[in-house]
This record gives sequence, structure tokens and C-alpha cells, in this order.
Amino acid sequence: MTKLQEIYPSDRVTLREVGLRDGLQLVKKLPSTEAKQRWVRDEYAAGVRHFEVGSFLPAKTFPQFVDVRDVIATIASLPGAHGIALTLNERGVNEALASGVAEVAIVVSATEEHSQANANRSRDSAVANVKRLCELRDASSHRPIVNAAISMALGCSIVGPVDPKEVIRLAEKLYEAGVDMVAVADTVGYAGPKQVGELTKAVVRIAGSKPVCVHLHDTRGMGIANASAALDAGARVLDGSLGGLGGCPFAPGATGNVVFEDLVFLCESKGFSTGIDIDRLVAVRSILKAEMPGEQLYGGLARAGLPERKSAVAA
Amino acid sequence: MTKLQEIYPSDRVTLREVGLRDGLQLVKKLPSTEAKQRWVRDEYAAGVRHFEVGSFLPAKTFPQFVDVRDVIATIASLPGAHGIALTLNERGVNEALASGVAEVAIVVSATEEHSQANANRSRDSAVANVKRLCELRDASSHRPIVNAAISMALGCSIVGPVDPKEVIRLAEKLYEAGVDMVAVADTVGYAGPKQVGELTKAVVRIAGSKPVCVHLHDTRGMGIANASAALDAGARVLDGSLGGLGGCPFAPGATGNVVFEDLVFLCESKGFSTGIDIDRLVAVRSILKAEMPGEQLYGGLARAGLPERKSAVAA
Repeated sequence: MTKLQEIYPSDRVTLREVGLRDGLQLVKKLPSTEAKQRWVRDEYAAGVRHFEVGSFLPAKTFPQFVDVRDVIATIASLPGAHGIALTLNERGVNEALASGVAEVAIVVSATEEHSQANANRSRDSAVANVKRLCELRDASSHRPIVNAAISMALGCSIVGPVDPKEVIRLAEKLYEAGVDMVAVADTVGYAGPKQVGELTKAVVRIAGSKPVCVHLHDTRGMGIANASAALDAGARVLDGSLGGLGGCPFAPGATGNVVFEDLVFLCESKGFSTGIDIDRLVAVRSILKAEMPGEQLYGGLARAGLPERKSAVAA
Repeated sequence: MTKLQEIYPSDRVTLREVGLRDGLQLVKKLPSTEAKQRWVRDEYAAGVRHFEVGSFLPAKTFPQFVDVRDVIATIASLPGAHGIALTLNERGVNEALASGVAEVAIVVSATEEHSQANANRSRDSAVANVKRLCELRDASSHRPIVNAAISMALGCSIVGPVDPKEVIRLAEKLYEAGVDMVAVADTVGYAGPKQVGELTKAVVRIAGSKPVCVHLHDTRGMGIANASAALDAGARVLDGSLGGLGGCPFAPGATGNVVFEDLVFLCESKGFSTGIDIDRLVAVRSILKAEMPGEQLYGGLARAGLPERKSAVAA
């Protein structure tokens, strides 16, 4: 069994907590390093194993990730826990490789317009960067997983609808560049389940034995429905954030990622065992509430709890 | 074309606003009659045609429905609008028939335990009541549609899991009793999309040419995913309430029905044209906010708006 198959087994669903990175993009008050570490440890105790821990970005612009190495160290101390760090440029890539993090994520825009506007480079140049990252990975001692996320893959904040054929072409180029996996991201939450299912199916087809990640935002309330469609289409890696923490810089007032605890409920209801205890997971929200009192948390499980399996009293 | 096919065409999706009945079950402050009428008229202007308007129940216990006849009159004044009133006993049935409302809904519990605890009668006795209602319908001059809702069909607050075979048997008995349509209700929001899809498919199979309604609650965040599964399984009538108004007496803190405006977005994203203008629909929330300031409204579309189809400025 390769390391990739060990970390992302194809015969089960892997849910990844991305609140420590994607969830902190826009928060008003940052959690302390110690709180982040408790967040990781308490979710680990609830059964979560995959965590996006932060970004390697200039601390002046992104103070929320200045302690990314401390969170990586916490992950390293927990047997079987897997850390993912985002990088955007070669300096970040080198820092990520040096940190020993087990997975390095990098983002490529689905549309030329968004690539130019957001990263000031063409998509081809972004793919070349990914190729360079894969070469650096090959030369590294611990050879982390390289995961290329295709942002705006299901709708673009600049051009609107995105041709799925372009996303597939981009995914093919990323595989050629040497990535271990591709993530399809509905960055601005434009899609419904039909579109998510169709694109996921197409990416799963070209991915072969490689895991396909689907990264969804709940911007328009479609998050869980889209996750369900992604599972039906064969994706086995899904992202979420506790309480749906996080906003979207392109959609003021919008919610963030799919609510993690509701995502667990969805998977279990579909017969995918996640190994995650929902009640214990919901309890971790208290850390977020205490550290970021200004953030709205979402989620049905936190409000209503798990269904009663047997109640003594008729209501 | 029969009246039933005219009101619920099998070749398109019908979305029903149930906020005026199901949404008002638990609210702290009741909207005025005039506000209810504006709510109906403004949603009608947005393209909504099907409204659950209230219940025929004792005004002392259910003051929220004391003006049900006024709302029925408003519906009658709007060309093509369709009103639905809930009844629980023979007095209510007679009042509903006398009111001239176009559809009379009646509820039967999926489980014997819930039927006894909630309505103090067996399921067989409940089915006999439905048969009596159908006879009264046949003897009436305007012959309203009779819609029997199976509550707790996807999980019961008393016994927990519900055997889908029992729901199918009950649906068969209801068709034999003469109902025009059956609604499958996840009253306490226990189900995920797999279960909803499987039960819906089974009910659609025995329904023949009759419309099948699926009535979902968003208690655990599965509302839209479950609606998507119901559509995939062939249901063409779905219930929702504006802003997800309404709670659940069996699940404190739980949300109400599926968020109506998000449901419209889901349907349109799946290629089902609803004829409903989402922006105009979202604007109707101002009536609910003004009349019921203590109620939490939900929904992604209200927060984020429709996706930009083309934006001039890169963000």
C-alpha cells in the first residue's frame, strides 16, 4: 500500500477539517495558538484525522497563519493525524517542505480571468509552478503529498459559469505535472448538486486510482446537497469546517465551508463510516465560540442533536 | 386534463409555501391577518402558486389559524393560486369543505406508537377518518383535492427508525381510502438523502399517475440534500417555508421546513423551472421579520444573493 492510499483509502470516505486555514481567512479575532492546538486535539479525540493547518504566507498580510509550524507540530504529536498546509509561491513551497508537513496544497484558478486577477499569472504559469513544486517534492526527504486545488471550478466570481471541459483539461495538466491528487473547489458556492455530480464524475474518471477531493462552500445553502452528489459521483475526500466557520471574500455575508458536523451526519446516513463521534465533534465548537465570539457558527446537528433512537416519553 | 393534473402537472416541479401553516406552529408572536395576506400576495407576485394557508382547529388552542378563512379568500382572489388547509378531525373536515378551500390535508402517523401518543387513535382508525373525508369530498360540490400526509415517515420521535415497508402499506391503504395524493413527511428531520430517495422511489412506484409530495424539515441540515434526493427519485411536489420559518415541537432549537428560496435555487440548478423569481421571493422575508421579530430566519440565498453571472470588478 502506498503512502497515498494509506492516508486516503479508496474504500472509505475521508473528511478533512479545513477550519484552521480556510475558516480563518476572514475572522475578526484570531484564535490563540494554544486554542488552535486544543481545537486539533479535541477533534482528533472525536475521531478526525485530516486537518488543513494553515498557509505559508507572509505573516504581515496573513497573521492568522504565523503559528502554522506550531499547529504542524501538534499534528505530528498525534498518531495517524495528517496535516495539510497551503502554499501560493515558491518561498511558501520551500517553507512548507522544510516544515515537514505531510501534504502541501497549492491553488490554480479554473479560469484565465480569475488566474490573472487573483494571482497575476496565467493558468499555464500556475501549472508550471505546480510542476516545480512536484520536482521539489521529489527531491525532498519526506516527500509530502502534493494536492492541487482548482478554485472557481464550479463557477467563477469574475466570468460566471465555467466550462467543465476546461476544468478537466486543467486537471489533466496537473496530473501530468506530477500532483498526487486534485481538489475540485466551488470557491464561491455557485453550484447545485447536478453540476457538482457531473464534474466530480468526470474528474474521478481521469483520476484513476488517485483520490479526488471536493471542496465545497455553503454560500447558497447547497453545501450538504453538493457533498451528497460528490459522494454519489465517486469522490471519497471532502472538506468541511466546524460550524461552517469562514466567509467568502467574494460574497459578503456568505457562510464558509460545509458544516463539518453535518457532513459527518450525511456520510453516516449514506452508510459511509467516518469514525467520527458527532457529539464530541459538536462539543469542540465551544473553543471556537470562546476564541471568536464575533463569528456566526452554523449547523443542524449543533442545534438539534442526533436523532433519538428511542425515547421513553411521547411528545 | 383532470383538475389534479392541472394543479400538480407531472412534467414540472411544484413548490408549496407551507410557512403560513407549518411555519406558524411555534412562533412567539403571530403575524396579523393583513400581513399574512401581504405575504401571500407578494409571494404570488414572485411566482408562487401553492400555499398551505392554515388549519381548521379550535381557535382557543390554535389562535394562529383563527383567520384561515381570510387567507383562503385572498388565495381565491388570485388567478391560479391554490390553497391547502390542514384538518385533524371531522369538525375540521366539515369546516374545510364549507370554506371552499381547494385542497384539504390530513395527517396520519407512520407508526402505531406515534398515532396513539399524538392523536389518541390507531393508524387504522386514522385511515378510516381519511376514508370518511374522501366520502365527504365526493359528496361536496367543489370536490377539493384530498392530500394525506404520512408524518414520521422517515423516523419517529417515539420509536426511532421506521420500516419503509410500513410506510408503503399505509400509503396503499390511503390510496384505497380514496386520497388524491400522499405526502411523505420527515416530521422530525431524522433522514438523510439515501433514505429519502429510497422511500420516495417506492411511493412514486405505487402512486401511478398521482402526484407524490415530499415534506422535509431541515432539523439536521439535510433539508436541501433530501429535497434533491426526492427530486432524483421522481417526486415533483415539495414543501418549504420562507426563511425556513418554523420549529419542531419534538426537537427544541431545531429549524423548520426546508428554506423555500434555497429550494427554488436547488430546483433551478437541477434544470426544473419553477417560475419563481428568487430575488422577489427573498424580499418577502421583510414581512416575516417585521411581524415576527423574535424568529430566526435561515437561508443561503438571502445572505449571499444569486451568483453573479458577470462581474466587472475582480475581487
